[in-house]
Amino acid sequence: MTRSRPDHGIRVAVSTVIFSLRRESDDDEARVVLPVVRRTRDPQKGLWALPGGWVDRAENLESTASRTLAETTGLAPSYLEQLYAFGDVGRSPTRVVSIVYWALVREDVSRAAEQHNVAWFNATELPGLAFDHTAIVDYALWRLRNKVGYSRIAHGLLPDRFTLADLREVYEAILGRRLDPANFRRQVENSGTLIPTDDFRTGSHRPARLYRYNQDVELADRGPLPQ
Amino acid sequence: MTRSRPDHGIRVAVSTVIFSLRRESDDDEARVVLPVVRRTRDPQKGLWALPGGWVDRAENLESTASRTLAETTGLAPSYLEQLYAFGDVGRSPTRVVSIVYWALVREDVSRAAEQHNVAWFNATELPGLAFDHTAIVDYALWRLRNKVGYSRIAHGLLPDRFTLADLREVYEAILGRRLDPANFRRQVENSGTLIPTDDFRTGSHRPARLYRYNQDVELADRGPLPQ
Repeated sequence: MTRSRPDHGIRVAVSTVIFSLRRESDDDEARVVLPVVRRTRDPQKGLWALPGGWVDRAENLESTASRTLAETTGLAPSYLEQLYAFGDVGRSPTRVVSIVYWALVREDVSRAAEQHNVAWFNATELPGLAFDHTAIVDYALWRLRNKVGYSRIAHGLLPDRFTLADLREVYEAILGRRLDPANFRRQVENSGTLIPTDDFRTGSHRPARLYRYNQDVELADRGPLPQ
Repeated sequence: MTRSRPDHGIRVAVSTVIFSLRRESDDDEARVVLPVVRRTRDPQKGLWALPGGWVDRAENLESTASRTLAETTGLAPSYLEQLYAFGDVGRSPTRVVSIVYWALVREDVSRAAEQHNVAWFNATELPGLAFDHTAIVDYALWRLRNKVGYSRIAHGLLPDRFTLADLREVYEAILGRRLDPANFRRQVENSGTLIPTDDFRTGSHRPARLYRYNQDVELADRGPLPQ
């Protein structure tokens, strides 16, 4: 291994913003939540921070995201996407460039992953986070809200089969506003991304048809990047 | 300055993909072109590569992009956007994470910046590039084609005042296909992003009205990231 330059004193870390949905009760509306991890070391020991860690020299960036997520939160999301590289000089006492990923996990998965030292907060009611992690979450939320409009990203928060009301609730939680049910139904039916099943959900309400996503459409179009 | 960990042997570089337009003659159609720099050092000495360089410890990432662009190509684009962080283990003989930016420059600016060791190639007729730079250009082109559809990104390739034919030509060069002039006119007129001026371009064709972009609209929506 040749080194054409001396160490330039910049370290590379990976952090991940993982969004999920939570309802306090069945009647409650869903809210976007995310996990943060209590820092057990300086700098900023004791503060909440995004799950993450150092990139190992022999490890790809996305592998680091998966590994550090599993180590800190026990989560294994099916889908990770690179969000942005944050590298400002003053963001940490030492120079750290953080490659940030984002991911979605379903409510049942996120509930099963409760771990010591990890807390889930409403995305809009976060405590002060370590370093520039509050700004990172703001940017991730902005990307999520944008992306839900032109991709099937909501799929990452839903079970395999769901009603149109379930889907609308995901959109409402992400966008932070109510959507008109009739307009919403028309838009998703015209989008070609949903396939109706022959099954219905029954219960206290009138039966509601279950849908699934058209698997021929990519979850998110990453272009020529490796999938 | 405290160092909580030893050097982990990963270095951080910045590279930039700068797109411009070129016409061989006034009658020729515009093509998307980009500059590459001949490598004067190993590894991969002699190959063409994207302009870039190492991040200095006291330098923000975007500053590195601007500095290395100026040093290698003489270009100073008005707009730089982060594209993606490329960090696969095998992309270079040593471990290098490259934060890639992309930019647009107008044809007159790019023509004025001709430098020793820099060549401009059609984006679709590139020679083999060093490292994974061909894949990086493919991804940047994909982003450019996507982005031109939902933002005023074409502005970065146009002078302050332009005709609708000029604007259509930018779209055609980026998308690689012809657009119907009447449909195109209707779409941009409905978009609210253009302001007609009282001036016309005259010449061998019938006079064509000059437009300018509505400066109240951001060039690209970067959300809560610093502008």
